[in-house]
Amino acid sequence: MNRAPLPVTPTLHVSRWYNTPKPIALDALRGRVVAIHAFQMLCPGCVTHGLPQAVRLREAFPEDQLTVIGLHTVFEHHAVMGPEALEAFIHEYRLAFPIGVDEADSHSPVPKTMAAWGLRGTPSLVLLDQEGHVQLNHFGRIDDMALGAIVGALVERPFKALAAEPHALEERDEVGCGGDACAV
Amino acid sequence: MNRAPLPVTPTLHVSRWYNTPKPIALDALRGRVVAIHAFQMLCPGCVTHGLPQAVRLREAFPEDQLTVIGLHTVFEHHAVMGPEALEAFIHEYRLAFPIGVDEADSHSPVPKTMAAWGLRGTPSLVLLDQEGHVQLNHFGRIDDMALGAIVGALVERPFKALAAEPHALEERDEVGCGGDACAV
Amino acid sequence: MNRAPLPVTPTLHVSRWYNTPKPIALDALRGRVVAIHAFQMLCPGCVTHGLPQAVRLREAFPEDQLTVIGLHTVFEHHAVMGPEALEAFIHEYRLAFPIGVDEADSHSPVPKTMAAWGLRGTPSLVLLDQEGHVQLNHFGRIDDMALGAIVGALVERPFKALAAEPHALEERDEVGCGGDACAV
Amino acid sequence: MNRAPLPVTPTLHVSRWYNTPKPIALDALRGRVVAIHAFQMLCPGCVTHGLPQAVRLREAFPEDQLTVIGLHTVFEHHAVMGPEALEAFIHEYRLAFPIGVDEADSHSPVPKTMAAWGLRGTPSLVLLDQEGHVQLNHFGRIDDMALGAIVGALVERPFKALAAEPHALEERDEVGCGGDACAV
Repeated sequence: MNRAPLPVTPTLHVSRWYNTPKPIALDALRGRVVAIHAFQMLCPGCVTHGLPQAVRLREAFPEDQLTVIGLHTVFEHHAVMGPEALEAFIHEYRLAFPIGVDEADSHSPVPKTMAAWGLRGTPSLVLLDQEGHVQLNHFGRIDDMALGAIVGALVERPFKALAAEPHALEERDEVGCGGDACAV
Repeated sequence: MNRAPLPVTPTLHVSRWYNTPKPIALDALRGRVVAIHAFQMLCPGCVTHGLPQAVRLREAFPEDQLTVIGLHTVFEHHAVMGPEALEAFIHEYRLAFPIGVDEADSHSPVPKTMAAWGLRGTPSLVLLDQEGHVQLNHFGRIDDMALGAIVGALVERPFKALAAEPHALEERDEVGCGGDACAV
Repeated sequence: MNRAPLPVTPTLHVSRWYNTPKPIALDALRGRVVAIHAFQMLCPGCVTHGLPQAVRLREAFPEDQLTVIGLHTVFEHHAVMGPEALEAFIHEYRLAFPIGVDEADSHSPVPKTMAAWGLRGTPSLVLLDQEGHVQLNHFGRIDDMALGAIVGALVERPFKALAAEPHALEERDEVGCGGDACAV
Repeated sequence: MNRAPLPVTPTLHVSRWYNTPKPIALDALRGRVVAIHAFQMLCPGCVTHGLPQAVRLREAFPEDQLTVIGLHTVFEHHAVMGPEALEAFIHEYRLAFPIGVDEADSHSPVPKTMAAWGLRGTPSLVLLDQEGHVQLNHFGRIDDMALGAIVGALVERPFKALAAEPHALEERDEVGCGGDACAV
């Protein structure tokens, strides 16, 4: 959870994209709310809860109001969650929104975007408002009603408006993969 | 669905209240979003979906932002859904938010508030914005993400603001009690 | 839980039947396994879990192998769970299997069958084998896999066979109505 | 679906085992009912329905009555569902019952056991009775009540008994991976 809006839009470090004809730059998405769902294809909480919720999020809002992006942030079992494995996963689970592979860091098991954004594990959900400021950085499960409320409020909020305090949600501190999430 | 905000806050016609020390007047709730969940205690769609969702709605927003009210709008089986039966139902299902009995109309099986508001059956959900205008009048099932989005936007919307067009949601025309709802 | 098969088939004390052209006598059902689901129409655990499971049980086995019977065992809120209320409930929830009203006892809030069989609350499930012996007397929730296993074993068991020890299942001791059950 | 019990216990062709100190031979399991759950780690219907059901099956019956075995029958995306990927999957999903890798066939994408047994896709469930005869060969989803009933009947059935006709269940013919299953 970022305690205050960042001064600039965070940057995605992506080594490969799926489901998009060209790379996505967050800077180019000003004027839309953006949801970035960070997951690992072998994270049970991502497969059972996070990704189906990202699909429902995609369906609940118009594309000109909300952009949904998946980010494959592999921090364990790297050898078996490579690009080819991810491609099969995306195909079998019929995921249709753009998905980027978080760029590997040769000095750390944690990939670059995950480290730069301070993501605590998978699934994580990051929401940017229309100006590109981080309004939510949530690790673990979040229920549909609460998520809908936050996105609904961000979508409604007039551009260049208020903001100030990001939504504070209950967070989780469990380490490792539980039924709901995998912690860094 | 009301196609435009009503000029005045609609009025509740309630013959008896539960879970509140004094009657609730919608006029007195200006400044808060209000959700009125219309149900019947023997409507399967209300028991299975509508009332549990009303409980989740109550838990998802602070009380000073959102007021949740139940409205027992009996339009069938009147003899067995009277005040004593409702009291047992509220007790057994442990419902804690205020619930009013829609006032019977001696000339019609449809009670007064239900008729005046044009409710099409149970469950129905009516949302008022901070100025008391109807922003949603929905019959049947609505999913948590969509409902969260609407309430989140209303809560966020500055008082005396914009509004204009109420949210248009898919509606249903089935007649009688289906798995999800009972139609008038 | 009866620790040993009763020497004779227990008797139903029923004051009124629904969904059957004539009263049902358990003695007449020798050769079939019989499932008696004891419920109250205002018991949340019955409405949410017990009755839907009874419907699935009815659908999972042929009628000539398994008879499913509902028993309305009212031990609280008697005034609002009378025959007319039950009739509306059966209609709205579209229950199609035979349902009997457990006969009221003028000296006790607990009805006659419930007392005679030692039922501990609602929902309860009683299973009789093809010879009419009680093989299960379970209070509270039971999962589909376990219930299917018991009924599958009873249906398969050759008539006049083995038996001996009824299935021992985890039981519950909570008093009053919880999310799952109402205890006497 | 095998229309009659096979004359001999079918053979598992397994190239590697997990969660067992030594290879499992079906011949050595006479006297127990055996459930073999055939899955692929990237098959959505297996992850969402089949494997959680196999876990429930394992928990519902004593180990001396029922043996549950997983069989990784990869017939697509072979490169990304190898032994190392499966090991990570088993670890992350915390699967505890023995799991074997169906032996690859150098002449076909379909592995040897899958071909020999005529499995139609994943998830598939094969049940052997205490004598080792196939009593169920089911492709796709099966509900808990029905599965419990079949296993309960098999477990109860006296050794060297009756049998004759295996249970006929509704089957599915969809090709490719649907929400529930992947067809060969």
